[in-house]
Formats: sequence, structure tokens, C-alpha cells
Amino acid sequence: MIKYPSGVSKTYKEKSVRPTITRKSAANRGMTFEDSINKSNEYYREKGIALILKRTTPINVVKVDYTRGAKITEAYFEKQSTTDYNGVYKGKYIDFEAKSTHHKTSFPLANIYKHQIEHLQEVIKQGGIAFFLIDFEVQNKIFLVDASFIIDAYYNGDRKSIKYETVLNEGIEIEPTFLPPIDYIKAIDKKYF
Amino acid sequence: MIKYPSGVSKTYKEKSVRPTITRKSAANRGMTFEDSINKSNEYYREKGIALILKRTTPINVVKVDYTRGAKITEAYFEKQSTTDYNGVYKGKYIDFEAKSTHHKTSFPLANIYKHQIEHLQEVIKQGGIAFFLIDFEVQNKIFLVDASFIIDAYYNGDRKSIKYETVLNEGIEIEPTFLPPIDYIKAIDKKYF
Repeated sequence: MIKYPSGVSKTYKEKSVRPTITRKSAANRGMTFEDSINKSNEYYREKGIALILKRTTPINVVKVDYTRGAKITEAYFEKQSTTDYNGVYKGKYIDFEAKSTHHKTSFPLANIYKHQIEHLQEVIKQGGIAFFLIDFEVQNKIFLVDASFIIDAYYNGDRKSIKYETVLNEGIEIEPTFLPPIDYIKAIDKKYF
Repeated sequence: MIKYPSGVSKTYKEKSVRPTITRKSAANRGMTFEDSINKSNEYYREKGIALILKRTTPINVVKVDYTRGAKITEAYFEKQSTTDYNGVYKGKYIDFEAKSTHHKTSFPLANIYKHQIEHLQEVIKQGGIAFFLIDFEVQNKIFLVDASFIIDAYYNGDRKSIKYETVLNEGIEIEPTFLPPIDYIKAIDKKYF
């Protein structure tokens, strides 16, 4: 099921279609998980550290009124067929999906789509760097988890969830910083370079 | 100025917003330049050669009717703020823009946007592979031209056009094949690997 934004503005395409829960950590100062990632990407871009962009939310256009300068009069939000973010860091292709959970003891796999799993498999096959950023809201901790680990859990685990302890062992914890709000490039360095 | 599609279907998002002229070459059998690239990307993906995807056309959403399951009732096509395609090949980040011209003796720079130039500069800075695929319709020849060359011409040339002879010397000519219709990965191999 697709979730929709609670408000739509001129800058809609920069926003998530997913309502995200406000983080209360000092570092993020009330920004959503996604806003924090977007702000981090802006920071990386401005500093020339990396170029990671959010993919535009796909929209299924049904009707267009060409008498009024191509005004779209009927369209619907679609779910992303790939992942939320991709880009380049140190020449390497980067591709990731960001997920929040309010579960205390596990990360549920229910909100990961099969086509996302397949997309990330293809990225790995082509030698790209593929991962998930997982935000455990209750613990107030964020982890980078390599996509291959999630893919394995998706196909070979109980398909329902991954235990928090497992993420703690397998993932790279993102250390809190003020700016960028979520310094995941440091975790990429640790894991892949 | 943004150009709009002449027809909008359910698969709209997979189509170009740019009306492209039908190529008459045997290899492409009436497909547009963009369709040929998309078909090549499908081929690369199916064969596990590369994963290159077309970016979704951004749409500026103005009004949404939430009483009817989030139906968008007013929205407009926007021009791409980056490039048409990006992806991964041999682990490297790939980013390119495809342009057709019916000019006989030169490639006009008028339809390259400044933000596209800036985007490609950032890609190069991050070590990514950035280029243009230029389709000279009259000559029925397609070239891969490194983005740095176009960027230099954009800033330091007469800013109007690049001569066909210059593209012939600087670019890598894509050799015609039946499938994929435009085998630009071979040109990437020649130029960057």
C-alpha cells in the first residue's frame, strides 16, 4: 500500500510520500528521518564529499489537458520501483533505501518490497554499493546494513523481521553528529573502503 | 521551455517528455533515439551487463484530492534538473544525457541546461563517468562524448555549438548493432576502461 503526504506544496517532489515520525534526538532537532538524510545529502554535495540524490516519486499520469498548457488533471502517486536514493561517492555507485521502525526488538521486513530487493541484487551484481539505513526510533539509533544481509534475511530467514541484536552486530552504527544530521558516509568508509 | 508528450498512457513515466524524431536506420527500425536507449538498457539489465535506469520525469504537484484516494487533480511536467539516465557498470557510477540533433554540421548547445552542466561537473568531481550520447540524425551516426569536453565547450567555446568534425574527433562512435539497438557500453569500455 502506498502512503501519501499529508500536505502537498510546490516543493512536493523533494518530500517523501511516506509520513515519517519526528525524531526527537538533539542532533536532528525535530527533523524527520528522511529530512535528515536529505539535509545530509545537501551537506555532502555542498562540501564536495559525495553526490547522492533522492529519486523523484513516480506519478502515474492518466489525463492531461493540452488546452491549458499541458495541465495534468488526473494522476496518482506510485510506489518507488527501485530505492529512495542513489548517487556517486569516490567513483563508486551508491544505492540505498531508508527505513524507520518504531519496533523495539526487531526490524520488520514487511515494508520492503520484492522489486526493491531485486533492484538491490542487480546493483550488487554490477559491483555497486547497496545498503539500508535503518532508524530504530525507540533506541534512537541508526545503522547502515549491507543490502546483501537484508536480501539473505528476506529470502532465507523467517521473512518477517530481523532482530535488533542482529542489526547491532551486522550493521555499522551511525555516530551522532550535528552536521550532517546523519553522517552515513563515514559508515560507508568503514564498511566498503 | 519544456516540451510535452503527444500522448499520455499508463506507462507514461517510462516515456520521454521530449518528442523525438523517428530514426530510419535499419538497426533501430523506426524506434526513437530514446526508445532505442531504453531498449538497450533493458538488454543490458536482462543480460546482467549493466544497470542503467531512466530517471522519472519530475512532476510539480499542485492539488491533491484526498477524498478520492489521493487523486492528483492539478500538476505540471517539469524539466529534469539533472540528466536522463544514471546507473552502475563495473561498480562505477554512470551518468549521461542523450541528445538528438537534425543539424548537419554541428551540435547546438542551446538545449543543454546550465543545471545539467553543473550536475555533470559534480559527477566528474566525485569520480563518476559522465557523458553525452549525441545522435546526428542527418549523418545517422551516434557518438559518446565525454561530459568534460562538452562542459569545456559550454563555458569556454562560443557557447552556441560544437562542430560535427570536432565530435567526430573527440567522440567515440557507437557502432551499429541490431541488439542492443545502441550499444553504448562498448563505447564506455573504449573510453573509460
